[in-house]
Amino acid sequence: MATIQDIADKLGISKGTVSKALNGATDISETLQKNVLETAVELGYTKIRRPGGVRRLCILIENMDYENPHDFGYEIILGFRQMAEPAGYSVDIIPVTEKLQKSYSYDTFMLKHDYLGSFILGFSLSDPWMKDFHTSHTATVLYDNYIMANPHIGYVGIDNGEGMELAVSHLKQKGHKKIGYLSHALGSHIMQVRHKAFFSALRQNGLKSDPTYAGSSYYITQCMEKHLPRLLNLGVTAIICSHDLIANAAMIQCQQMGYRIPDDISIIGFDDLPICAYTAPPLTTVRQERIQLGKSGYYALESLMNGIAIGTLLLHASLIVRNSTGPAKVPLDANTPDLNSTVHSSF
Amino acid sequence: MATIQDIADKLGISKGTVSKALNGATDISETLQKNVLETAVELGYTKIRRPGGVRRLCILIENMDYENPHDFGYEIILGFRQMAEPAGYSVDIIPVTEKLQKSYSYDTFMLKHDYLGSFILGFSLSDPWMKDFHTSHTATVLYDNYIMANPHIGYVGIDNGEGMELAVSHLKQKGHKKIGYLSHALGSHIMQVRHKAFFSALRQNGLKSDPTYAGSSYYITQCMEKHLPRLLNLGVTAIICSHDLIANAAMIQCQQMGYRIPDDISIIGFDDLPICAYTAPPLTTVRQERIQLGKSGYYALESLMNGIAIGTLLLHASLIVRNSTGPAKVPLDANTPDLNSTVHSSF
Repeated sequence: MATIQDIADKLGISKGTVSKALNGATDISETLQKNVLETAVELGYTKIRRPGGVRRLCILIENMDYENPHDFGYEIILGFRQMAEPAGYSVDIIPVTEKLQKSYSYDTFMLKHDYLGSFILGFSLSDPWMKDFHTSHTATVLYDNYIMANPHIGYVGIDNGEGMELAVSHLKQKGHKKIGYLSHALGSHIMQVRHKAFFSALRQNGLKSDPTYAGSSYYITQCMEKHLPRLLNLGVTAIICSHDLIANAAMIQCQQMGYRIPDDISIIGFDDLPICAYTAPPLTTVRQERIQLGKSGYYALESLMNGIAIGTLLLHASLIVRNSTGPAKVPLDANTPDLNSTVHSSF
Repeated sequence: MATIQDIADKLGISKGTVSKALNGATDISETLQKNVLETAVELGYTKIRRPGGVRRLCILIENMDYENPHDFGYEIILGFRQMAEPAGYSVDIIPVTEKLQKSYSYDTFMLKHDYLGSFILGFSLSDPWMKDFHTSHTATVLYDNYIMANPHIGYVGIDNGEGMELAVSHLKQKGHKKIGYLSHALGSHIMQVRHKAFFSALRQNGLKSDPTYAGSSYYITQCMEKHLPRLLNLGVTAIICSHDLIANAAMIQCQQMGYRIPDDISIIGFDDLPICAYTAPPLTTVRQERIQLGKSGYYALESLMNGIAIGTLLLHASLIVRNSTGPAKVPLDANTPDLNSTVHSSF
């Protein structure tokens, strides 16, 4: 293991200066400090911790609201802190920008601020530190992002395959055969996972799996304008959405176009945000148990810090059935009421 | 929650008799006791536990050796106990037979013996209790078996997808293009997962994925007689095996047939049993970190007992490179040494 002397030797400066830089002394220039920290990371230096000293963790968060109880991230952070703080850790919540990620490598940032580990929320695949995670030596848990073959990095989330299977089989039981999918842009790991899980669940249930049944856009409005009418024209009788907010927009948009929910179209969301009980109609959705996600995030991080290389930890998904899903509408070309009811009961 | 009175009412017997049966009193017939236990499970009865009382867990084990340090199950059990016992649990290790599983439903067995939860090792898909796990209300962690949509049941294992990817990409880097797979029979969840992961890793690495490149048998000897010669005739230059013991048998068999390992054929196993360092040559293999599996099994079980619905917990896989893998042999039809070396360096 590298020592302060190793860092001093490599940079040709005194041990005292290295020590000052590592401890964030203010009489050292920022450039020199950065240089020392980067060299320390490069050499694999680890700070020696005194017993009883403060043990610091951080939650690094981006693209996710978390400050109010109805925000998605709020309970995840709560669950994490409910486990970490009684175990003696202090937890900092830090919103991160792309600029911050570009100014320091991930391990340098963690060493600079004396964090033993972090829980990462809301990162997309294009975030600069996503590359750093492949080679990082810092214990790190990613919510909804997966890094292969680095024993210091774990992934925590719900089982999206199970969630999608519950959603599709629920619709199938209600007689739906043509099911569409509306999604946020596929620029994040989790959107790719859900997209794949959707088609996999269709096949698993013996339903037609056609790429044109899915549409994704970065903006919800674009998704509503471009893909929703297209899916309706294709004759889908139900739509699963990658997020509750997309599902809610789809319900409103469908209703404005004269479709009744769930009589004409069934809609299912993902997440079970607090809003879902109060949409019109209340939304059937795949629940992410957020307090449990936060607690699991802490456990996985503690394991990684103790050398137990948790790669993936998935919580069971559950489907919360409300009123946005109902029996499939009988196709228009089935033209007698009697025939219709026969068709229905055969599902 | 059901009470002793509810059970007594349902069976038309006294509370005292129910209580005796639940506590295993010897002056109650076995039939009556079984009846009481089954009714208790049916009604969702839970024993009230006194603070300070013994809290009991069990490890139910089948089809897996565990008594000696070189056995696969030994360290899994050790890791579990290293976590469970300091936390105040007593842990019983119970070999289970099909007969036992047929004589009691799983939840009845657990109630009868007053176990709060169990860790299940070595079960195949045909084990009678595998059906019970779909509806069980007992906290249960399955090593290498997955049950969908029951929040009381979790799955712990290594990430076989990652392990297979590490094995295939290692071989690809060494110039192998035709890779075969020998497996134990596909009657267990984990064999199905590895089989699928093998073909997925081939595709991921842009290698030809042909079902005939794989063979599986219940008995190792059958696998060696039936599938190994077939794969060799197909011209594979490397074989990945679902277990170290198959890999070891394949090395011996290949050598008896005049093939050199790894000059003519590279072999990779799965598990990293202690024997792997001492095979001839020492075996390259995907390691299952067994102490960590045991510890993770305990953590997942503790979480389930606390209502955190862990569905899947996968440890990072790692590839232990020894001497059974080497550069791919140049095809026989490449007939000049110069050409051969050119072909080699282009990989």
